[in-house]
Amino acid sequence: MSDTGRIWTAGMIVIGDEILSGRTPDANIAQVARWLQVQGIRLTEARVVADDMDAIIEAVNLLRTRYDYLFTTGGIGPTHDDITVDAIAAALGLAVVIHPEARAMLEAHYAGKPGGLTEGRLRMARVPEGAELIHNQMSGAPGIRIGNVHLLPGVPHITAGMLAALTGTLEGGAPLLCETIGCWVAESEVAGMLREIEAGHESCQLGSYPFFREGRVGANFVIRSTSAQDLASCVDTLCDALGTAGFDFTPGGI
Amino acid sequence: MSDTGRIWTAGMIVIGDEILSGRTPDANIAQVARWLQVQGIRLTEARVVADDMDAIIEAVNLLRTRYDYLFTTGGIGPTHDDITVDAIAAALGLAVVIHPEARAMLEAHYAGKPGGLTEGRLRMARVPEGAELIHNQMSGAPGIRIGNVHLLPGVPHITAGMLAALTGTLEGGAPLLCETIGCWVAESEVAGMLREIEAGHESCQLGSYPFFREGRVGANFVIRSTSAQDLASCVDTLCDALGTAGFDFTPGGI
Repeated sequence: MSDTGRIWTAGMIVIGDEILSGRTPDANIAQVARWLQVQGIRLTEARVVADDMDAIIEAVNLLRTRYDYLFTTGGIGPTHDDITVDAIAAALGLAVVIHPEARAMLEAHYAGKPGGLTEGRLRMARVPEGAELIHNQMSGAPGIRIGNVHLLPGVPHITAGMLAALTGTLEGGAPLLCETIGCWVAESEVAGMLREIEAGHESCQLGSYPFFREGRVGANFVIRSTSAQDLASCVDTLCDALGTAGFDFTPGGI
Repeated sequence: MSDTGRIWTAGMIVIGDEILSGRTPDANIAQVARWLQVQGIRLTEARVVADDMDAIIEAVNLLRTRYDYLFTTGGIGPTHDDITVDAIAAALGLAVVIHPEARAMLEAHYAGKPGGLTEGRLRMARVPEGAELIHNQMSGAPGIRIGNVHLLPGVPHITAGMLAALTGTLEGGAPLLCETIGCWVAESEVAGMLREIEAGHESCQLGSYPFFREGRVGANFVIRSTSAQDLASCVDTLCDALGTAGFDFTPGGI
């Protein structure tokens, strides 16, 4: 816990016509909200806006000044309707440039693939001038950090990977207590077990964060509680259940 | 289609700490959005705010004046943290009163139930002065309409019942028509094609929604227009272009 007890806050902007048409139910507000809790940061407001420059600019300039952090999801892909980078650069009064490291990542990613690094794909290396990259473990295209604004993609499992890359890098306040158990298992194999364990530990939330790494699937199970005692009890129950089911697990996560 | 071609718009406010903590994933934005499309009304912006008077009042007063309609979900239940009615009454400068018809509904609903119509339950008959009720076919407590503001509950299946009760009661314009073409292709491979086709069909919007499924990447291309003729022309052009480029596509989406 920070000495001051300061509450750190975040705003979020979900960008995409597909959310406002109801075609694609948003999954990122809940995902980002839960992740922020672990970082000791409180999601205080979220907005869903269309793929529209003015709408994005208005929301960005309001929320980035109102909260400690701002997260956006959506609109950083290669197609013509992906305008988030341009809108945020405009909101901040910055030029859009090709980030050399992002270009190198995309070159490597598309080296063996048909077409190589096309003009469309190179769009994914465009960033507001001065931005840093957020590592993307799922595909070639990185996320972007500029000031307190974090640009994440709209596809939830790619967003999840970038949140994992950001874990522990943002200053926050008093977090929920949290422990992670890693396991080389497809999370679907243990879904029922996880559900039962969470139901049996009322003060705990149990999250499952799958990954694909070194050619294998695995998951980190994150248990959160404000009570150290309840947290320890839930972690013990989970480790016992994984062991009994024959899965090797790694306290602290993989 | 309306004679004027006017586009009718709506804003939405999802009210609830449980959404911003990530504990409850929102399901109402997608549900209300899809329902509005059928009414010929376009959801243009959605916000998620905390159970906080000032946050609700600010969002209500901005969105009810910016759009033709405003919908809120959440915070109209019986407990102390359900403050939506009070916040919206304050936003509109109205008193909060017991609606006699709502009181009668609740009396009937709780007549045979233990405790009857308690003080807590009677809270659900409170409305901003001058409001009409929105019929609730699922439980005793009604929704509320005051001016262009519609107060719906947070529990999605109860919200669904109230939307059914509202169907056909709101003036709207031409519904946005929509067709989807699915294709097993990385969207970056066809980004240029999509951009050109959208540019060539001014009355159409063309969205690209990538996915990763069964170990392969693909995308659904969604074409929207209020003109059936323009929509069909744009769909034909896209299918021709995909076919010519050697991609199999699936009308209706994948």
